[in-house]
Parts: sequence; C-alpha cells; structure tokens
Amino acid sequence: MVETSTDLAKAIDYVARATEDILGFLLPAPDGPEKRLIEAMRYAVLGGGKRLRPFLVRASAELFDVAEPFALRVAAAVEMVHGYSLIHDDLPCMDNAELRRGKAATHIRYDQATAILAGDALQALAFEVLAAPATHSHAEVRTELVRALAAAAGPHGMVGGQAIDLAAPTVAMDLSMITRMQQLKTGALFGFCCEAGAILGHADPHRRQALKAYAHDLGLVYQIVDDLLDAEGSAAEAGKAVGRDRPAGKATFISILGIERARDQAAILAKQAARHLDIFGRKAQLLGDLAGHVVARHS
Amino acid sequence: MVETSTDLAKAIDYVARATEDILGFLLPAPDGPEKRLIEAMRYAVLGGGKRLRPFLVRASAELFDVAEPFALRVAAAVEMVHGYSLIHDDLPCMDNAELRRGKAATHIRYDQATAILAGDALQALAFEVLAAPATHSHAEVRTELVRALAAAAGPHGMVGGQAIDLAAPTVAMDLSMITRMQQLKTGALFGFCCEAGAILGHADPHRRQALKAYAHDLGLVYQIVDDLLDAEGSAAEAGKAVGRDRPAGKATFISILGIERARDQAAILAKQAARHLDIFGRKAQLLGDLAGHVVARHS
Repeated sequence: MVETSTDLAKAIDYVARATEDILGFLLPAPDGPEKRLIEAMRYAVLGGGKRLRPFLVRASAELFDVAEPFALRVAAAVEMVHGYSLIHDDLPCMDNAELRRGKAATHIRYDQATAILAGDALQALAFEVLAAPATHSHAEVRTELVRALAAAAGPHGMVGGQAIDLAAPTVAMDLSMITRMQQLKTGALFGFCCEAGAILGHADPHRRQALKAYAHDLGLVYQIVDDLLDAEGSAAEAGKAVGRDRPAGKATFISILGIERARDQAAILAKQAARHLDIFGRKAQLLGDLAGHVVARHS
Repeated sequence: MVETSTDLAKAIDYVARATEDILGFLLPAPDGPEKRLIEAMRYAVLGGGKRLRPFLVRASAELFDVAEPFALRVAAAVEMVHGYSLIHDDLPCMDNAELRRGKAATHIRYDQATAILAGDALQALAFEVLAAPATHSHAEVRTELVRALAAAAGPHGMVGGQAIDLAAPTVAMDLSMITRMQQLKTGALFGFCCEAGAILGHADPHRRQALKAYAHDLGLVYQIVDDLLDAEGSAAEAGKAVGRDRPAGKATFISILGIERARDQAAILAKQAARHLDIFGRKAQLLGDLAGHVVARHS
C-alpha cells in the first residue's frame, strides 16, 4: 500500500496547488476603494490550509470523469465558504482565536469589522462562482450546486452546527448531540464536496447517496481527530491555539469517550466511510485511502 | 395624482404583508438545537421594515406579467440579504447601533455571536431560496438570479460599499466617492431587485438596463434622504438612532452639499429615475410614483 499512499500524497499536493491558483484567479489582487476588503479576503483563503475539501470535490468528480476546471471552480467556492466560517469563528465573540494556520487570524491582521465583511463577501462570491456559466454548461447543474451548497452552509448545516457548538458549554451534551453538532458543523460541508462531484457528473441517486454517506462519516473522523489533537497536541503542530476545549468545560468526543475509545471510534468510522465507496470499485481508491490518512493526521 | 398615490400606498402595503407571509413560511418557527439561531433569524427579518426592496421586485416583475409567487420568493431572498446586512452593520465593531426598526438590534436581543451566525445563515438561505425550483421553472432563470444577487451583495456590491463606508471617517471623501460608496452599499441591491423582475420576465437587455438605471438613481435618492433624516430627524421618527453621522466627522451627502442642495439633488435624481422608465409607458406608473414617494419619506 506504500505506492497508494504516495499517490494520495501526490494527489493532495496537486489539488492544493491547483486550488491556490484558482482562488488567486477568482480573487485578483485588488485596487480601488474596496482594496482593504479584498486583501482581507485573499489573506483568509490564500496561502494555506490542507485543502481537504477541494480534494474531496476533485476526487469525487473524477469518479464520473468530470473535467477538472469545473471541479476546481466548485472546490474554490467551497474553500471560500470554509474560509469565511473560519474568519467568523475566530472572532472575539465566538472562539476568540488569534492564531489560524500559523499566522494571525484575519481580525487580528486587519480588524473585526473588516473580518466580518470579508467573511460576508466570501460567502457571496462562493455562490457567484457556482452560478457562473464557467462552472458548468448546464444551468440545471449550476443551480443544483448552489442549492446544495446553500443547504450545507446554512441554518440546518454548517452555521446551525456552529450555533449548537456555541451553546455547548451551557448545555449538557451527550454523544448523540455532539455527533449531530459535528455532522452539521463539519459533515455537511464535507457532504457537499462529495455530492458536488456527483452533481457535476450527473450521477444516479444511489451513487450520490453513497458519496454523501462516505463524506458524513469522514467528517466525523476528521472532527474526532481534531478533538484528539486539541487534547494532546501542541500549538506548533496544529498551527492554531490548542487545549481550548478543556478549560471551557466543553463536552467533546474526548470528554465523553476518553482518548482511547475516541481513537478506536475514529478508526472504525474511517473503515465504515471507505465501505460506502465499494459501489465505485477501485476507481475510489484515493477517497478510500483518504479516510485512513485523516485518522493518522497530525495537524 | 391623489388616486395614484393611493394606489401606491395600497400596493406598498400589500407587498409588505405578502413579504411577511412568505418570510414566515420560509423560516418556520424553530424546534431542536438550532432553535435560538432560527429565532434570531426570524427576529431580524420578520415584523418590520418598509419592504421597499420587495416592492421593487414585485413591481418590476409585474412589468413582464410574472406570476406573483415567483416574485415574492425573490423578494424574500432580497429581504434575507438586506436583513443579514443590517444585523452585521449594527454590531459593536461596525455601527454599534442598539436600536433597529424601533426595537433592540439582534445582537442586543440575543448576543453578538448569535447575531453574526444569524446573518451568515440568512445569506445562505437567500441563495437556497433562489436556487429552489419553486422560484422559477427554468434553471437558467434561477441561476441568473443567484449570479445577479451574489454580485450585488458581494465585494463589488453591498459589502464593498460597507467596507468603503467603514473607512470613510479616516479618508477625505468627495462627492464622487460618496456617490460610488452609496451606489455599492444601497444601489447594488436596489439594482438587483429591479433586475430580478427583468430576469424573471425574460426581458430584453434594453429593458433590463433601463430598470437597473432606475434602481441605481432611486438608491441614491433613498440614501440622500436617509442622510437628511439623520441630520434633521428624531429617533422616534426613524425608528433607529439618528444624528450618528455628524459626531463621527463622517462625510455624507449633507456634509458636502448642505441640506438645501442635498434636498434639491434628491428631487432631481428622483425625476431622472422615473424618466428611465419611459420605455414601459403607463405600466411603470407605480415605480415612477415610488421615486416621488422616496423623496418625501419621513422614516
């Protein structure tokens, strides 16, 4: 399996660079009075991140032989939504985090008002990119991408998850509540990434559903590992402030399951995620390997 | 013209009630863990506002005999975007306003984090509504609505205008800069409202452009009158804090033109706005009358 790991690493690296390029193209260096706003948008989405979501979009799209430029535009839109959510998450009234991806959070580098507006503008731009004819020649496909991303990002998706997370320190959360919260907060956008490949590729509902199920499990794995890194890791490894969950007395997968059981759970879910891909045979090897990669990640 | 004024007042009132209904339908009273978030979203968009933007959407759509349910869904999407922008605008790090439409701003009634997330979720929901098949049977129309709203709301539209406005106290602004700022901040969304009618109605580019030009002028009139009300008005009349511009030393239409010239300018622009509608003949009477109504508004 060493060969496959190398393939995965290469593919992840390739997509990360391609995503950087398209984001730079979609957010050209600014001029004029909106300069500072657009600089803050660029600051937040360029030059960093694992680009896991873009990888999911591209790898899912490849299952259906979708042309890469289409997938990359969708990947860029997802990174805009993900990036805006990180900007807003880091604000003083939310997680109050000063460090993100090893550099100052957007509201520290700029100011809070600019950070809020940069997030708002990134969300709008994400939908503008999806709706543009360059993203797909069929309007049906574009409008379905918009609908799916909006649902994944909205009150019953990512933002809903954030809102539940905010209330977490004041509510007694059990495992099922944490799971639901994380499925909204992380899983919904992961789900969109994989669904986007299916939408771009005119997949049948069965394959589309298999990809969503994979992505939901993968999102949980990702979040459990995030909690593990937070409980054990160093800020240098994570590129952001860690050890934030315990002081707040917040329920996490770790506080409920303990470290060992959480680690086991992540491994089980990763295998379960990969099994959803059986329908695609060997063509889904990279996505299957990714689940193992996410379990083993260190940052 | 008394008869027409009555027609306009009736039409405005009708659209306001219909908009309230559809917003309530699209944002059903919540249950479950996202309850507080959705309550905050409802708080921000229900039960108030002049619903001027919905009126523009509906009146523009009527020029092309578009079925009302389509226009109202677009109107609801616009109000979600407008409402989210007000929530974020009122935050302490932005305008720091505690009063909005005669009641506590969302971040006062709830809290800052919930207010930010409610705004974020409203923006996502707006695009979900536009992309849904119920908004129009043609995907081409829906995707064009999404593209146009995203452009009007994004970094080169409403949010760009807010960013320039934020920088205003620190920058020497002349009349052309203020005009551009307001054209982005208010005019872009007004422009979308009228353009949306044209998009829904498959209008030719000439008519679509005429409506956009009308809306841009109307947006400026609206903003000049806003500045006049701020300079002269009472908080009770405006339903929000007034007299906010002068203490900050911020350049406004009034600080540059003075009250008398600003009032003249608003009247001239309102006439100019109405003239863009000549192409539609008497069918555009309500929109033409609206320009006069906006000049004369007291809140």
